[in-house]
Amino acid sequence: MNAVDVINKKRRGEALSTEEIEYMVMGFTNGVILDYQMSALLMAICLQGMTKEETVQLTRIMRDSGETVDLSEIRGIKVDKHSTGGVGDKTTLIVAPIAAACGVPIAKMSGRGLGFTGGTVDKMESIPGFVTSMERDAFIRSVNEIGIAVIGQTGHIAPADKKMYALRDVTGTTESISLITSSIMSKKLAAGADAIVLDVKCGSGAFMKTYEDARELAAWMVDIGRGNGKSMTAVISDMEQPLGNVVGNALEVREAIDVLSGGGPKDIRALSLRLAAEMILLGGRSGGDRAKAEAIALEALDSGAALEKFRQFVTNQGGDPRITVDQSLLGEAGFAVEVRAAADGYVTALDAMQVGLASQHAGAGREKKEDDIDMSAGIILAKKTGDEVRAGDLLCTVYGNNEAKVKTGAEEAHKAYSIGPDKPEQPALIKEIID
Amino acid sequence: MNAVDVINKKRRGEALSTEEIEYMVMGFTNGVILDYQMSALLMAICLQGMTKEETVQLTRIMRDSGETVDLSEIRGIKVDKHSTGGVGDKTTLIVAPIAAACGVPIAKMSGRGLGFTGGTVDKMESIPGFVTSMERDAFIRSVNEIGIAVIGQTGHIAPADKKMYALRDVTGTTESISLITSSIMSKKLAAGADAIVLDVKCGSGAFMKTYEDARELAAWMVDIGRGNGKSMTAVISDMEQPLGNVVGNALEVREAIDVLSGGGPKDIRALSLRLAAEMILLGGRSGGDRAKAEAIALEALDSGAALEKFRQFVTNQGGDPRITVDQSLLGEAGFAVEVRAAADGYVTALDAMQVGLASQHAGAGREKKEDDIDMSAGIILAKKTGDEVRAGDLLCTVYGNNEAKVKTGAEEAHKAYSIGPDKPEQPALIKEIID
Repeated sequence: MNAVDVINKKRRGEALSTEEIEYMVMGFTNGVILDYQMSALLMAICLQGMTKEETVQLTRIMRDSGETVDLSEIRGIKVDKHSTGGVGDKTTLIVAPIAAACGVPIAKMSGRGLGFTGGTVDKMESIPGFVTSMERDAFIRSVNEIGIAVIGQTGHIAPADKKMYALRDVTGTTESISLITSSIMSKKLAAGADAIVLDVKCGSGAFMKTYEDARELAAWMVDIGRGNGKSMTAVISDMEQPLGNVVGNALEVREAIDVLSGGGPKDIRALSLRLAAEMILLGGRSGGDRAKAEAIALEALDSGAALEKFRQFVTNQGGDPRITVDQSLLGEAGFAVEVRAAADGYVTALDAMQVGLASQHAGAGREKKEDDIDMSAGIILAKKTGDEVRAGDLLCTVYGNNEAKVKTGAEEAHKAYSIGPDKPEQPALIKEIID
Repeated sequence: MNAVDVINKKRRGEALSTEEIEYMVMGFTNGVILDYQMSALLMAICLQGMTKEETVQLTRIMRDSGETVDLSEIRGIKVDKHSTGGVGDKTTLIVAPIAAACGVPIAKMSGRGLGFTGGTVDKMESIPGFVTSMERDAFIRSVNEIGIAVIGQTGHIAPADKKMYALRDVTGTTESISLITSSIMSKKLAAGADAIVLDVKCGSGAFMKTYEDARELAAWMVDIGRGNGKSMTAVISDMEQPLGNVVGNALEVREAIDVLSGGGPKDIRALSLRLAAEMILLGGRSGGDRAKAEAIALEALDSGAALEKFRQFVTNQGGDPRITVDQSLLGEAGFAVEVRAAADGYVTALDAMQVGLASQHAGAGREKKEDDIDMSAGIILAKKTGDEVRAGDLLCTVYGNNEAKVKTGAEEAHKAYSIGPDKPEQPALIKEIID
């Protein structure tokens, strides 16, 4: 086999064989296929596409390029949940305890935030004492004993994806449904769960800006997961504006505790219940009955069982469980800047990406992987899309420990708000379920 | 400007600005744009194309990436001739003396052979004493004094093309009409002539296998040359079977002398006269009258003026002019192997590429640039397409100084012949003139 022949085949629009895909992907990962050959192939894939079957194989090969997690020692159907990333998305902190409380074993690896989107690992680390790394045996034992453990991704998962993603980033080859799907799914497949519930975001704060694009990605991920033997469900949810009323690491833990305690904003509560129900359904805990799965999830939340599971989870990973009753233990920011409306009207749009950037620049996020983050930094939204405002009303408050950064964040947060005379239609939070 | 933005623009199928093309091509040539970015852009160009205007600019930028030859000290309209490469194509050795004898100044740079196609420089070097390199001043003076000089290409012409071509070769990005055109034309433009006659080959022994592809390439080259201020004509000629009756360096010089002496095979004589007439026309030596240009070319050949010009040309570059009367001075091969027909019938096809490979492997060509060649090696064709044969008849004789190589060449030459019961139609030698 020879790289130029494989590249030419894809340039002509033909489907590659499994052997050809493996030759290129593993050759590239091992340094035998050179980066300029891989980038030519990636561009040919962007423009000529790959079939679902090619993408199933590509994803499997990328998964097998590194370590795969063996969860077979955990009893029951392990269900994972993955969000394509958004602003204010703290659902994992709520959904995982609900599902675990309902008997679905949660053995989850989460990521860190980068750019304007947050990451579950960073949020968890804002809990005093919480540790997001764990030896394999302790991880398995935790799930078997208390039903839940969430840790950071190890560096040995899907190295082919890591190398290909870095190359795509600098060669204009990011936009390919097959490459996007295989990048996400290779890592999820390597994480070892039996079933995966996907939360595919669409809107200004998401990777996929339109419903059509989000729907296409969701359908591909479901097919590629199934093609690799997983049970799959995808929920398509709105990310035009941030989810919930807060953005930022410690602030989001507070809001998650609010929801687990029976309060919190309606949107984050509704989406969390929806995702938990889908996990319970795939986990075989409702006899295949979706309505029953919803009722079970609601009961776990309303009874306090989910909050109790959250406390066990935090305690097991070294965190202080008193945060559920005394949120001041999560720390307070040194500075706060209020953002106020300049005119009367309605909030016609609240740009999620802009809010994410404002929060990042206030100190809550990273520009580069190595950057430190300010756990207390973030934004509390007083008004969201559809709310009526009068000039001078508080729109949001930006927090953090670096005064200059907080001011920058406040200026940027102001720009996230569009105010006009007419009350806008509210977009549906949950747009579709693909199962 | 940034490479990823430019690559993305072309990936989306948009036309690049002159500044963007220059940024990428010169950045790549100077090592600022990395090879994996250039290969992604090249693949995007292969699949999304470039407009003629983009290709005019790309070609100009590649031309200006290195030295350009200034022929302004030479009086008259300098006309160049370029063949896209074939097997047995010794037309330059015939056409250049005819055109020069008719007053068209010939200041030409030619290439070496690679793979199954020969190169004029190698053929000329089979003439004892002939030198293919010359200082600039001597080159200019030669053309002003005797009307003709042909030298090898210098290494400083279009370095952008050299680097891009090497990358295209290993990244499956050779097949793009814009990239092919700019690669050829950047070098021709750098060579400094005022007008160019292109001989675009089509068929099994040519880069372009079909008439449609050859026609497209010819039209693009004409447009890109004109877009850069040159007078252009393209002749599309057949390369299904080799041109003339011999292939190989010294053998081709012999056949060229035969034609210049009034003999030689009909096809090579006809094509040479056609190309010479087009050069005379573009050179302004026939008052814009094509029929007159043909008559002038024929007269120069039949009168012996072209042969005399050839002698002057050989003498001026250190070669022995007695080769025109004593061809044994061109040397004789040590071994000869005859190839004979296995059955009665007609030669239905004589695969030019296969003949070229046979000649190469007999010792006449190079696989790698560094390889030495055997000037005496090659093939004399006794039968060509359309000829009747009986079992045992001589089809061709393969020559060379290495017995094993000659035998290999003979086996391969045998495979070039297809023999069948029906006399085939003869393809037209000259298919079209684009002017």
